[in-house]
Amino acid sequence: MIIVLKKDATQEVIDHVVDKIKGTGLAVHISKGKERTIIGAIGDEALLSAIPMEALPGVESVMPILKPYKLVSKEFRKEGTIIDVEGVKIGDTTLQVIAGPCSVENKDSLIGCAMSVKSSGANILRGGAFKPRTSPYDFQGLGVEGLKLLAEAKKATGLPIISELMDPRDTEVFCEYVDIVQIGARNMQNFRLLTEVGKIRKPVLLKRGLAATLKEFLMSAEYIAAQGNSNIILCERGIRTYETATRNTLDLSAVPVLKEETHLPIFVDPSHAVGRWNLVAPLAKAAVAVGADGLMIEVHPDPENALCDGAQSLKPSKFARLMEEVKKVALAVGREF
Amino acid sequence: MIIVLKKDATQEVIDHVVDKIKGTGLAVHISKGKERTIIGAIGDEALLSAIPMEALPGVESVMPILKPYKLVSKEFRKEGTIIDVEGVKIGDTTLQVIAGPCSVENKDSLIGCAMSVKSSGANILRGGAFKPRTSPYDFQGLGVEGLKLLAEAKKATGLPIISELMDPRDTEVFCEYVDIVQIGARNMQNFRLLTEVGKIRKPVLLKRGLAATLKEFLMSAEYIAAQGNSNIILCERGIRTYETATRNTLDLSAVPVLKEETHLPIFVDPSHAVGRWNLVAPLAKAAVAVGADGLMIEVHPDPENALCDGAQSLKPSKFARLMEEVKKVALAVGREF
Amino acid sequence: MIIVLKKDATQEVIDHVVDKIKGTGLAVHISKGKERTIIGAIGDEALLSAIPMEALPGVESVMPILKPYKLVSKEFRKEGTIIDVEGVKIGDTTLQVIAGPCSVENKDSLIGCAMSVKSSGANILRGGAFKPRTSPYDFQGLGVEGLKLLAEAKKATGLPIISELMDPRDTEVFCEYVDIVQIGARNMQNFRLLTEVGKIRKPVLLKRGLAATLKEFLMSAEYIAAQGNSNIILCERGIRTYETATRNTLDLSAVPVLKEETHLPIFVDPSHAVGRWNLVAPLAKAAVAVGADGLMIEVHPDPENALCDGAQSLKPSKFARLMEEVKKVALAVGREF
Amino acid sequence: MIIVLKKDATQEVIDHVVDKIKGTGLAVHISKGKERTIIGAIGDEALLSAIPMEALPGVESVMPILKPYKLVSKEFRKEGTIIDVEGVKIGDTTLQVIAGPCSVENKDSLIGCAMSVKSSGANILRGGAFKPRTSPYDFQGLGVEGLKLLAEAKKATGLPIISELMDPRDTEVFCEYVDIVQIGARNMQNFRLLTEVGKIRKPVLLKRGLAATLKEFLMSAEYIAAQGNSNIILCERGIRTYETATRNTLDLSAVPVLKEETHLPIFVDPSHAVGRWNLVAPLAKAAVAVGADGLMIEVHPDPENALCDGAQSLKPSKFARLMEEVKKVALAVGREF
Repeated sequence: MIIVLKKDATQEVIDHVVDKIKGTGLAVHISKGKERTIIGAIGDEALLSAIPMEALPGVESVMPILKPYKLVSKEFRKEGTIIDVEGVKIGDTTLQVIAGPCSVENKDSLIGCAMSVKSSGANILRGGAFKPRTSPYDFQGLGVEGLKLLAEAKKATGLPIISELMDPRDTEVFCEYVDIVQIGARNMQNFRLLTEVGKIRKPVLLKRGLAATLKEFLMSAEYIAAQGNSNIILCERGIRTYETATRNTLDLSAVPVLKEETHLPIFVDPSHAVGRWNLVAPLAKAAVAVGADGLMIEVHPDPENALCDGAQSLKPSKFARLMEEVKKVALAVGREF
Repeated sequence: MIIVLKKDATQEVIDHVVDKIKGTGLAVHISKGKERTIIGAIGDEALLSAIPMEALPGVESVMPILKPYKLVSKEFRKEGTIIDVEGVKIGDTTLQVIAGPCSVENKDSLIGCAMSVKSSGANILRGGAFKPRTSPYDFQGLGVEGLKLLAEAKKATGLPIISELMDPRDTEVFCEYVDIVQIGARNMQNFRLLTEVGKIRKPVLLKRGLAATLKEFLMSAEYIAAQGNSNIILCERGIRTYETATRNTLDLSAVPVLKEETHLPIFVDPSHAVGRWNLVAPLAKAAVAVGADGLMIEVHPDPENALCDGAQSLKPSKFARLMEEVKKVALAVGREF
Repeated sequence: MIIVLKKDATQEVIDHVVDKIKGTGLAVHISKGKERTIIGAIGDEALLSAIPMEALPGVESVMPILKPYKLVSKEFRKEGTIIDVEGVKIGDTTLQVIAGPCSVENKDSLIGCAMSVKSSGANILRGGAFKPRTSPYDFQGLGVEGLKLLAEAKKATGLPIISELMDPRDTEVFCEYVDIVQIGARNMQNFRLLTEVGKIRKPVLLKRGLAATLKEFLMSAEYIAAQGNSNIILCERGIRTYETATRNTLDLSAVPVLKEETHLPIFVDPSHAVGRWNLVAPLAKAAVAVGADGLMIEVHPDPENALCDGAQSLKPSKFARLMEEVKKVALAVGREF
Repeated sequence: MIIVLKKDATQEVIDHVVDKIKGTGLAVHISKGKERTIIGAIGDEALLSAIPMEALPGVESVMPILKPYKLVSKEFRKEGTIIDVEGVKIGDTTLQVIAGPCSVENKDSLIGCAMSVKSSGANILRGGAFKPRTSPYDFQGLGVEGLKLLAEAKKATGLPIISELMDPRDTEVFCEYVDIVQIGARNMQNFRLLTEVGKIRKPVLLKRGLAATLKEFLMSAEYIAAQGNSNIILCERGIRTYETATRNTLDLSAVPVLKEETHLPIFVDPSHAVGRWNLVAPLAKAAVAVGADGLMIEVHPDPENALCDGAQSLKPSKFARLMEEVKKVALAVGREF
């Protein structure tokens, strides 16, 4: 850690900062320039985390040197993590596609949708059983019944399934039914939930929070990994900006930046980012071109009558056409499909 | 709800939208202008929430007429809600001040801090027992032990206590010890937690999420109220913007806007917003001037050795001076203190 | 325009709003619902722009029906605009690439760079002669001398040239030397400059402002078009968000959204958006996949010694490789190259 | 400047960075830690500005030590700047208030407004003659005629006048008529305009850009000061965030942060920030409480018939009441009025 002192820092100020650092067991290096005195703390920076360094008298600014995440970092593990979900290899050279309805509504509709997306090339089925809705008066999902229907759809199609977990008390029942546990954007910093899914061994798909920096996103993944579960898939799904033409702003630069920082696979969900079905296709193709390991796309057999997020759901026929187009882009950037 | 159709909407398009609306039982009003056809849906808009209106063919834009929140709205209840917490009347003409350390560390330090803030004019004691930390490697709080120390501090000083709840599984033990349950910014849309605190009868202080609109903030309060608990205090604590000079950007315009919309009392937490103790005083005074019902301020007997958020904590002596200044501003804007 | 009145709007309130609307010559339609009275103003909304409708007593909210831009809208002109710049057809099915150094430094370096980008497939040369720099102490460009060097590079390579205009007083000299006049992000709402370039007949490349909504972006294009110049190329170059991992956040969803709204061609500049050369390639490919009509990319023969923005400039060899990759993606999405 | 190298930086990488720094004449200090090698560049950092340090091979991150602004910094000048505008001392202990209509419309209305705001306590008159409007079809101001009317209002009331300059070609005529030249938010990084007003000797009120960081804001002030004009007043007027309940988000924390960094006086314009007259009063009071040196407030004799921004303009009677309230807050925070 580098500590820059204010212009006229006295010896007393310097000594005080030095004492603080030495108190943690770290070594100190002092550099007195013409304009500023700079103090370097040498050793494990984590030991300094409890010191409010920037609030010490005479301190102008503080700059950490090391990344706060370890287990999920590329430094910790150079080669990319490949997660095997019932034979589907996530993080490998093949582009993987998760598709399905926003929420599970009934058995026939779900199985029909599952068969359809499978035939178009998707290899994991999504479906919400517990839905985080902004309004308490909106449809909240079928609950455990929804998980059971997903399990039936898996049996019928062979597609592994993913669904969103919102409450630590539901962890056990999720482990019984789903193949990948999803943590939604609104719970990205629900640290108790992260700790809980860190203790299980099912893969976790972690969505980026609406206002989360990439650093915070990786720290949330670190929460899961710190408990022993490093089967984590990161998913960019749009961030909140001042622009209102789309529901959120899909941050595709997140993909190459994360690729530099972490060994975890990275997915992109264009459906939730844009909020309108007719924008999903161009952004799905862009996500593949930018280097995503997979896509997560909402498909509903009858969007106009969906109980949730119909506006952003593709009809199966449009999804089939999108898969054709996505395939071409995937091949153009050296991905298998 | 008003639905604007695209310029050359056909009769088929019009009929389709009309059928959708009528299918919910609402009445329809059609206005054909020179440039656009406009359809009004007359009646309870909530019935339309499942229809992806903006995604229907030929629809250009959709505008709701009614507010999505009811129980927390000023329309529902004109006079301001006053919440009595062990005799402290929140939402009344008197400015109320919550103060105390970021996290509970030990008995002596906590009771010393409590006595000190009480003598300076604070009338509710804050202290974190379960801490939401960005890093899994940082101090996570004393847990239930922290709640017990808070209860002891209450016994010693008579100050009612507030602490943050992060996990629905801890609700019961919180009800045993604390007087106000705090829901933190990161959990503002943890809907399962909101539902849980909606079922209890303790007052809830709900912090605005880092990227929450005021409408979403009120919808989260509605989640709590919908379960039967309308003893809710809203707390502005800074939003995330592009500016990095302060940790977050304190949105003081939120106070008069919320005052127009809701009958709930509104607090401001300048400490978390700015992240630096020397900016807390001017923003605390501004919060009072803008019309807040109360303040929430971090105070620590020895910020340099605080286990959490020392950079933004005031020393008791600085807090005492701030209370003197706050009092003057409060009186200038017609508040008692 | 739709005007929603507050719940208990009196007849006096209604009459007042109606009088205001009628005063402009527009017709009025009143709809009294159970919850709200709604007033529709029928006719040319532009006539209402001077009335502070939302501030009239009893008005709750106001919703415009028509788009504020006309000449640049798709309603005004259905087929896409194709701009011919010395034989390079912008907006056509072929992907066009503008490349070159951030700033013009000297003749040899510029012509070398121009030849190199041409041989890799670029067909327009960029180069800054007047540079908008955040610091007054940084290199501000060669000025008119730079324009002359660009003209020489054009003569040597046949590539048409583009350069940024910052001051209305320089318009004439720009018209003498450049083929496309660029208006930078910081001047997107420099309305006097927009008016000036509206009066000339050279094509204008207008960059989106750092905090401009797409609606404001189109309104700025409308400023130019309203003066008679509709040879306008829009360029997305990243917006300002809370994320600091990249310099700005490239908003690729802007491309399909703009395609719905306007007939103007749309370019993407990934170099300025991300600020780091190693992120340029993935985002350039994504821009093509999402449907951009062209790219604008910074290339410098020796980025380490560039006088400006070296961090984001590609070496010619890296640019050549990128063009190979971009070509594959272009073909995959049905573009010629 | 501190340069942090990547984990496994080779000697070649180190030598290359060192050579780059030494090439500028600065001295180098190398610190090899267990985890990272850190290089310090000692001396005038401005000399490094042209080196794309973060793009050099093996560089992980770069941290400037010195502030990029000099003349406007508190280090350069410890005591606050006081600007004398026709006897009105800006930056002194007295709170100063600029008030008047958004745009100058006609002589009677302007002089009536001027007399009224003067009698309520304002001591500088504002009025737009050239208006930056988002739409080319909206009222663009009276131009020079408007400046002349302002001069007449000054003669009638004795109030010094301020008006917004948008075009460098108008600088001379502004110097003839106005006492303070305003640079609007949209032109905060119109560097040619900044350079122009740096050459004159009239005081300049510089508004913060909608998406400008405080550092950029100060750099724009530095542009003016670097030309020799340090009579600069900074004005916070709201920044763009995701929140749409107010037009912009007034960032009141900017005031104490700027007070730490610069010796220039700081004003706040709540009218443009919130966009609605009924929110102006609470935020004006908050601005005074947070420490602003002055306010800028829109007042119009008949807001419903204002040609511009009527929604945010106060009626003279409401402004008079606000001044009473503002006075109380000013006195409470130790300001004269």
